[in-house]
Amino acid sequence: MRIDDESIFYAFHSELIPVVTVESGAEIQMVTRDCFSNQISTPEDFSGLDWNQVNPATGPVALRGAQPGDILKVEVLGIKIADSGIVCVVPGAGVLGDRIEAAQVRILSVDDRVRFNEKISLPLNKMIGVIGVAPRGEAVPNGVPGDHGGNMDNRVIREGATLYLPVFHEGALFGAGDVHGAMGDGEIGVSGLEVAAELTFRLSVIPGSASTIPPLEHPLLEDDQDFYAIVSGETLDSATKRAVATMADLVQHKTGLSLAESTMLMSLAGHTEIAQVVDPQVTVRYRLPKQAVAEYFTSLF
Amino acid sequence: MRIDDESIFYAFHSELIPVVTVESGAEIQMVTRDCFSNQISTPEDFSGLDWNQVNPATGPVALRGAQPGDILKVEVLGIKIADSGIVCVVPGAGVLGDRIEAAQVRILSVDDRVRFNEKISLPLNKMIGVIGVAPRGEAVPNGVPGDHGGNMDNRVIREGATLYLPVFHEGALFGAGDVHGAMGDGEIGVSGLEVAAELTFRLSVIPGSASTIPPLEHPLLEDDQDFYAIVSGETLDSATKRAVATMADLVQHKTGLSLAESTMLMSLAGHTEIAQVVDPQVTVRYRLPKQAVAEYFTSLF
Repeated sequence: MRIDDESIFYAFHSELIPVVTVESGAEIQMVTRDCFSNQISTPEDFSGLDWNQVNPATGPVALRGAQPGDILKVEVLGIKIADSGIVCVVPGAGVLGDRIEAAQVRILSVDDRVRFNEKISLPLNKMIGVIGVAPRGEAVPNGVPGDHGGNMDNRVIREGATLYLPVFHEGALFGAGDVHGAMGDGEIGVSGLEVAAELTFRLSVIPGSASTIPPLEHPLLEDDQDFYAIVSGETLDSATKRAVATMADLVQHKTGLSLAESTMLMSLAGHTEIAQVVDPQVTVRYRLPKQAVAEYFTSLF
Repeated sequence: MRIDDESIFYAFHSELIPVVTVESGAEIQMVTRDCFSNQISTPEDFSGLDWNQVNPATGPVALRGAQPGDILKVEVLGIKIADSGIVCVVPGAGVLGDRIEAAQVRILSVDDRVRFNEKISLPLNKMIGVIGVAPRGEAVPNGVPGDHGGNMDNRVIREGATLYLPVFHEGALFGAGDVHGAMGDGEIGVSGLEVAAELTFRLSVIPGSASTIPPLEHPLLEDDQDFYAIVSGETLDSATKRAVATMADLVQHKTGLSLAESTMLMSLAGHTEIAQVVDPQVTVRYRLPKQAVAEYFTSLF
């Protein structure tokens, strides 16, 4: 099953019409446009950019049988990216936006590394910026992250990772886009290396009744090394508090340790990390190394 | 030169009397008490804790010739820790303090790992929690981090790291303590594994006039892999902004890249990271991999 990049949307919403409905366990390919909807071929194109066409996501894909209260399991099997990408700064945007006087955009070539200039090349770090499901209430523009996922700009959403999203509406309505060839934690300048891509996922529905974890309020992620709770919010401070609380609930539930013991363990062994600080809500992830709890559990489900 | 743990202080202050005055380039050993001033031998001791004796730092050490505007270079040559440590939770403290109903303390043994319980052992992660110089103005209790360093609880301040601190007063007045055998980023439960230790430093004065970087407003750090700007503040959001700005100024100054280019590079290659979220000010570090700028500079001085 392959979905091309003609099937896109700009806001996660329960009333979107699915492009396709798949069975739980299906493998799908999605072609995704870059965050500028592939409008920029030369730096000059930036000044004529249609800002109504930013952060497209490909999809949505409906999962047959997915019901509110279930969990959507998204295995990121592959990320293929274009051989060039775009990085930009914009006045008023990003951490240093009040010091940026004019928009600037650069197109960088990509091979096994990102070619920044004649002196600098950077390692590839392929990751998915926008990924989510239809949110609980009103439509959420793709640029905004939340409990439904969305524009988390989280660099651990990469090949080999498994993301778990709450299902709020029948079919879940999954979509993804805004892939980056490289991005540092924070995405401080407001863009990563923005690239078109082809993504391969395996999508599965975990019935809420089969869940071995507390009701899913925020995205969770696991990879070979770590478990993550991912929370977006108004401030880093509030998002941090909720990410830590989410993981503390999970640890207690899965291990039987008390809150005090779980807190001690998390204080010694786990890490509060920043995903991004420049979207309309910021995103924090709390990371617990799997090794720390391996005698109790080794996967979330 | 060895300073035992009888020479301690509880607030960084310009009027402290130095224990010793050393030449620039001196190697010193400091014996440090744990953050509870070694008052706890059994969990029961916690209820009788004298809270006026928390976060002692050993010192202070004066550097001959250090003047305001200079930079104190602190090379962390060695961290030896005790064979047991303390971890605790306290109602009202830490990220989950509003859910902690009673103080609990545990004493954990340490060998090549930290022995958490029968099922869990954690890797050692030896780091210095309190390290700094006399601050610009009034005395700052050791529990509070700031531009002078202090209780940064930053897990990258470990063996092999070099910390650079602004000098605000003649002699700098350096001290350190509050060593942890392990601590995750965030220190979410308000304690790491609190241990007594013996620290080895090389302390050097870099004259302000010889500096190749902008005037030092916040601590900087470098190790084999990375450069860091370290900022403490009221909120993670404000500290993040200042840490990013500090690194952006540094990158521009050292590379000659424009602000726009420096921002793009930092957005793609560098990482906004949390040191701790539970002290009276929180601490953020912005990390730039040395590899990203190696064609321009490979060390700060």
